[in-house]
Amino acid sequence: MLTQDFEKLLDIGIALSGVRELDELLDKILCEAQLLTNADSGSIYLVNGDKLVFKTSRSNTYFKRWGEAKTREIFRSFEMPITKDSIAGYVALTAKALNIPDVGNLPSDSEFHYNSAIDKKYGYETVSMLVLPMLNRDRKIIGVLQLINSTSGDSVVPFTEAHQKITSSFSSQAAVSIQNAELTDDLKNAHLDTIFKLSAAAEFRDKETANHIKRVSHYAKLIAQKLGYSKEEAELLFWAVPMHDIGKLGIPDSILQKPGILTPEERKVMEQHCVIGAVVLKDSDAEVLKKSRIVALTHHEKFDGTGYPQGLKSKAIPIEGRIVAIVDVFDALSSKRCYKEPFPEEKVISILEESRGKHFDPDILDVFLMNMNEANKIRGSHQDTDADFDKYIGLKNIDLNELLK
Amino acid sequence: MLTQDFEKLLDIGIALSGVRELDELLDKILCEAQLLTNADSGSIYLVNGDKLVFKTSRSNTYFKRWGEAKTREIFRSFEMPITKDSIAGYVALTAKALNIPDVGNLPSDSEFHYNSAIDKKYGYETVSMLVLPMLNRDRKIIGVLQLINSTSGDSVVPFTEAHQKITSSFSSQAAVSIQNAELTDDLKNAHLDTIFKLSAAAEFRDKETANHIKRVSHYAKLIAQKLGYSKEEAELLFWAVPMHDIGKLGIPDSILQKPGILTPEERKVMEQHCVIGAVVLKDSDAEVLKKSRIVALTHHEKFDGTGYPQGLKSKAIPIEGRIVAIVDVFDALSSKRCYKEPFPEEKVISILEESRGKHFDPDILDVFLMNMNEANKIRGSHQDTDADFDKYIGLKNIDLNELLK
Repeated sequence: MLTQDFEKLLDIGIALSGVRELDELLDKILCEAQLLTNADSGSIYLVNGDKLVFKTSRSNTYFKRWGEAKTREIFRSFEMPITKDSIAGYVALTAKALNIPDVGNLPSDSEFHYNSAIDKKYGYETVSMLVLPMLNRDRKIIGVLQLINSTSGDSVVPFTEAHQKITSSFSSQAAVSIQNAELTDDLKNAHLDTIFKLSAAAEFRDKETANHIKRVSHYAKLIAQKLGYSKEEAELLFWAVPMHDIGKLGIPDSILQKPGILTPEERKVMEQHCVIGAVVLKDSDAEVLKKSRIVALTHHEKFDGTGYPQGLKSKAIPIEGRIVAIVDVFDALSSKRCYKEPFPEEKVISILEESRGKHFDPDILDVFLMNMNEANKIRGSHQDTDADFDKYIGLKNIDLNELLK
Repeated sequence: MLTQDFEKLLDIGIALSGVRELDELLDKILCEAQLLTNADSGSIYLVNGDKLVFKTSRSNTYFKRWGEAKTREIFRSFEMPITKDSIAGYVALTAKALNIPDVGNLPSDSEFHYNSAIDKKYGYETVSMLVLPMLNRDRKIIGVLQLINSTSGDSVVPFTEAHQKITSSFSSQAAVSIQNAELTDDLKNAHLDTIFKLSAAAEFRDKETANHIKRVSHYAKLIAQKLGYSKEEAELLFWAVPMHDIGKLGIPDSILQKPGILTPEERKVMEQHCVIGAVVLKDSDAEVLKKSRIVALTHHEKFDGTGYPQGLKSKAIPIEGRIVAIVDVFDALSSKRCYKEPFPEEKVISILEESRGKHFDPDILDVFLMNMNEANKIRGSHQDTDADFDKYIGLKNIDLNELLK
């Protein structure tokens, strides 16, 4: 390889290893591979068990014809077995790179076969292919990088030796980055699972369901997005909101589960849950716990200063508290509780409107009400079942040996 | 640079980006830099606020003289301000690499100065130095790579242009890997904090303290290590153990907090906490939650089959359950409770011994008892204070505005 090829590879390696979001990374890898080889199109498949799962594709031809969004939509998701019945499958099975000048001219005794169904369906003519196994550090196949139709001027030409060399080196770099991104994803998902599971556990004594926590978190994220939060900030709020009622763990059953109206003294104890939650969550450097501490402390403050525990007023209430105040009440009104059916949407909205500027920040309320369609979708995807309201039901016919596995 | 230099750099880049443990990574970076430049010694400093913190060093001379362990112990931890008063400080301040043929011969008007105090203290003669800024992708300084005394045969020689070129390219790769490892550390720490905070919150209603959870987790990890678990497996158990009593959230105050002895019916409800915990934690792909589900379900099983909820016997009880059974009882006996002082060590041991083969797996008990010294150290580092036993004390004089920050 030439010096500038190496320098390019080093630069790409540095750029790749900085991308921690898997989707963004895969697209970047494919884009770089396309540039290194003048390929018209390309795809990345990742190994999942005994299947290859299609992850991303780029195509100058299709992007020109349909635009990027539509192309991605069409080729969004399919999977194929890892067998010799497809070129990518063959590469995943054998870990050998294939550089095919013309897929229409494969010898009749070829070990691999080209399936032209997709070409025919979408009016594309695949000629040359360069298909590379992506091997991680343990030399295990984690995916396949497929490049189609190298171009020179207006013609389709075969991929060269040099193309194959540079992309082979590149694809090992890419594989390590993919594996890192997957590990990061796993870490994040494990953390988020822990937050939702333990937060739901904390609601065991209360009348709230696990879905209540999920809905409220999604509504809060929705508002954050519409307020122009960055993706990361909106995500952070989503992670923090589940823990907003964790302080109820410090409230005795006799008050938390009292069926009637609380006495003023009991109410005072109950209101302590905001402070208890914030105390429990304090003393951590983790951004998510800092954020959840703010939410726990302030989600019962009211815009006119009549809330608790501090009686903060207006913009003195952290925005996270003002957001959760709205979505927590919205969820209580719009979903079933053991003592009530969900209110119809008009009633929910009119109750929220009545509290505009009193309980709720009017600007944030406007943003939320303008996005009722999306809120309703969230509610639809996280509905409670009857069983959710009697948590002990789930314990009756449980197979303990299943839990042991 | 030569083709083989580039190939080496690509390989190193791939190797580095696969290392996710920061300490291991720093050592690997330094080792590779030493090899690339024939340096006798070297160190890595990372930027922390306005300081450079010494992280790792390697030295052929010192390793030969004292061995690796002692050398690392001597140079374990020091920090220095980022100013022109040291060479590393100068490089961190200016982001300029320095290639100094002889630090004893710096011009009198030099902008940077060599401090020979450490050389004098340990009998080392620093001559040539190559000191490089480590820049991340945003061109921010995250650390300094310092190489000392390039050697050729038996002589110390200046670092060459070629050395400087190859390590400069290498140090940007290294910086990205370091940043990735730090982000991974942050993710893990945030997750672990969440586990400990929420698990401690779940004990709010109970008489257990946050330190109880920490001690029990450390004892369990200690046993796992002594049983020959891999570092990762021992760590996973450490993460899973805090959640072992999460199912107590499903037990009413009237039973959980009952001062006297439970009736048989109440006992039956109380014993449900193992099942509730396992149910709450199920349905996650996260390894830590799977492990914690097993611990939650089985930590009250007894080796002779008289435990609950399943009455599993002997090795049919998952090993995690057998480990936590021992350390949970050990901690109850050896630490203060609101109703008792800690028992003396001999009494604790004799009580555990009485249950050998009945409550406890005899082999695991042996392993634990053989490591009482380390267990006592753990207890010493996580002692309860009086305030830990009255959780509401902490709420009395709290400054809510502090919690808002």
